[in-house]
Amino acid sequence: MSDVLWNTGGRGAPAVPSAPALAVRAAELDAADPLAERRDLFALDDGVVYLDGNSLGALPRHVPARMAHVVAHEWGELRIRSWEESGWWTAPERIGERIAPLVGAAPGQVVVGDSTSVNVFKALVGAVRLAGDDRDEIVVDATTFPTDGYIAESAARMTGRRLVPVAPGDVPAAVGPRTAAALVNHVDYRTGRLHDLPGITAAVREAGALAVWDLCHSAGALPVDLDANGVDLAVGCTYKYLNGGPGAPAYLYVAERHQRRFDSPLPGWNSHADPFAMSPGYAAVDGARRGRVGTPDILSMLALEAALDVWDGVSVHEVRAKSLALTDFFLECVRAYVPEGRLTSLTPAAHAERGSQVALSCEDAPAVMARLIERGVVGDLRRPDVLRFGFTPLYVGFADAERAARVLAEVCARR
Amino acid sequence: MSDVLWNTGGRGAPAVPSAPALAVRAAELDAADPLAERRDLFALDDGVVYLDGNSLGALPRHVPARMAHVVAHEWGELRIRSWEESGWWTAPERIGERIAPLVGAAPGQVVVGDSTSVNVFKALVGAVRLAGDDRDEIVVDATTFPTDGYIAESAARMTGRRLVPVAPGDVPAAVGPRTAAALVNHVDYRTGRLHDLPGITAAVREAGALAVWDLCHSAGALPVDLDANGVDLAVGCTYKYLNGGPGAPAYLYVAERHQRRFDSPLPGWNSHADPFAMSPGYAAVDGARRGRVGTPDILSMLALEAALDVWDGVSVHEVRAKSLALTDFFLECVRAYVPEGRLTSLTPAAHAERGSQVALSCEDAPAVMARLIERGVVGDLRRPDVLRFGFTPLYVGFADAERAARVLAEVCARR
Repeated sequence: MSDVLWNTGGRGAPAVPSAPALAVRAAELDAADPLAERRDLFALDDGVVYLDGNSLGALPRHVPARMAHVVAHEWGELRIRSWEESGWWTAPERIGERIAPLVGAAPGQVVVGDSTSVNVFKALVGAVRLAGDDRDEIVVDATTFPTDGYIAESAARMTGRRLVPVAPGDVPAAVGPRTAAALVNHVDYRTGRLHDLPGITAAVREAGALAVWDLCHSAGALPVDLDANGVDLAVGCTYKYLNGGPGAPAYLYVAERHQRRFDSPLPGWNSHADPFAMSPGYAAVDGARRGRVGTPDILSMLALEAALDVWDGVSVHEVRAKSLALTDFFLECVRAYVPEGRLTSLTPAAHAERGSQVALSCEDAPAVMARLIERGVVGDLRRPDVLRFGFTPLYVGFADAERAARVLAEVCARR
Repeated sequence: MSDVLWNTGGRGAPAVPSAPALAVRAAELDAADPLAERRDLFALDDGVVYLDGNSLGALPRHVPARMAHVVAHEWGELRIRSWEESGWWTAPERIGERIAPLVGAAPGQVVVGDSTSVNVFKALVGAVRLAGDDRDEIVVDATTFPTDGYIAESAARMTGRRLVPVAPGDVPAAVGPRTAAALVNHVDYRTGRLHDLPGITAAVREAGALAVWDLCHSAGALPVDLDANGVDLAVGCTYKYLNGGPGAPAYLYVAERHQRRFDSPLPGWNSHADPFAMSPGYAAVDGARRGRVGTPDILSMLALEAALDVWDGVSVHEVRAKSLALTDFFLECVRAYVPEGRLTSLTPAAHAERGSQVALSCEDAPAVMARLIERGVVGDLRRPDVLRFGFTPLYVGFADAERAARVLAEVCARR
């Protein structure tokens, strides 16, 4: 894997800007940033540089008041009436429509509920069933976030398919007439590598299989364009770049062309065509709602709904531009401040291959991250040796990136 | 089905107490009720008689302050640190331990998370796998809440078993050497009928099969005694008699003797023996945690945890005694106030067959329930003709029961 820190583009050692110059440039970049004022929408402490929004997004400031109203009024006073009067019953599809534009989906294709793992199961079993009985293999991204692999194995076992783990770049070569579906992560949770969603999707579909994407580490940080790229099914969480709160419910995208034949392995009563008929026979509802299962967890769901307000008027392309500028600038600062060879970057240099995080490795990563957090620079550790820094464009600025790199250099100077 | 309203015990018309006499008796019963003061723990409006706690439990008064702290401090200020520092990561099993005594389970067997439907899938597939390959039938309560039937059908399909729907009373006769598992509701959501958990469990186990119980309509209203009765697996929701909030996460009980062989169909990373190793191979953790799947929905989960405080110092046997006294008294008031033949009771007369709700039917049930709600008596309708009245012993009193019956009589007088 190429190291973007000190060996960019095969040139010799690049010219290294000085610390004051980088701090000045950070201030200029922040001043010119059209998203800079979005930071005020979040509850953030200026003493902390929060670079862990790729694990848990920060709290939007208006969410506590909304939640207080939900708990005290909707639950406490209206009680059962809220299922209709407060719109609880329709929350999964209503919130799905809020997420849809962020992932490039036309209305009617996204529904919110359950965890990402549960949605991977629905999507993968659903995809296998759509592909038909003569296709007996499920291709899965071998570098995937582990839960996807574990659930894919269960889906394969329960549908009588064989699991074929490959690296994402090898998916186009691995798919063929036996492939039912391929499950791939859009951005690798560990390295921050962005995979070629358009190319892989096209190759999978060309082979007659279904492309299933996990968007946990991309949605809210970069354009996904599910519809435009012909993705078949997708899942994602909402507590990272979408700031929905700890363990906020995940979402499921089923492309409109597949919805009539989508056959969920978890056909709970919420996906029934007439749920309150309470009829013993199951009849699936049409549309995105078919992805629902049981009673939705309203408190978590309505916190997510409120949190999505921070996206009003934001273009995901603008977010992507800032994300790349931030990670570029952070890498530049690290290169300037940290002695050559002290850290290795796992994050690709090419923009087309980079998500919205920077992953740096070193042998003493656990100690380095502990000291960084003590110093107010919050990233996270992925064992054994990866420092992860997530850049959430709605609330992280260039001065944050410069400060994080400066503190990282100071921490790295101690062994 | 025997009608307990006007034909009790085959006697002629019973002596009918007068309205003032019943109101006086209600006041006496409330004054003597050892649980009466628990009502103050809940946010309730004295203008309303809330008899829908079997659908959505009332809000415990202290929950809003706890949720405000969770949102503003644990999420907003500690952010990612809360997974450890605020105990988020261990919440599913910690809250499971709070529910365990309410369902008669020793520690280490209950875990919270996901919806009831998802837990039915885990429990039933898990039970089938525990039963072994030579048992090819799943017996399911044909009167079950529909989602259980739909999910059971999916579990049967995905494990290659045949689904055998029977009435709960016929389960002992239906189980045999081919039965892998039987899924039964402890209390029928529609009629309020309590099924014979000890007897059915014994018959299922005698046949070499596993007994899986759905406790949604019993836990928190009456003793369940899972361990004492030798139940194999069980699931239940927490938003009815446990007052956990709308769509609060459900729970899964796996008897200790089965845990080492419990093989979940949803082996998400939260059930891994070392989840943060993020290893590509799945290795299931020991104990109740094996029932976890993905990242838990913390906001809903911590509301539930706080809500469970209302049970501190309460005996579930005391709750059961009051529940039976309440439903007896309500039926007596209905008999006294409503003209004979106007309503039919679907709820069994025998205490051993009665849960904590009363179900009354009449042709114009939709109009009757609408008018009841207008008049401040909140029950619910189960289409086409059932009026459900849930009696939550922690916050419903005898005066509530008398008032509900009186208003019901007034409403029934209008056609």
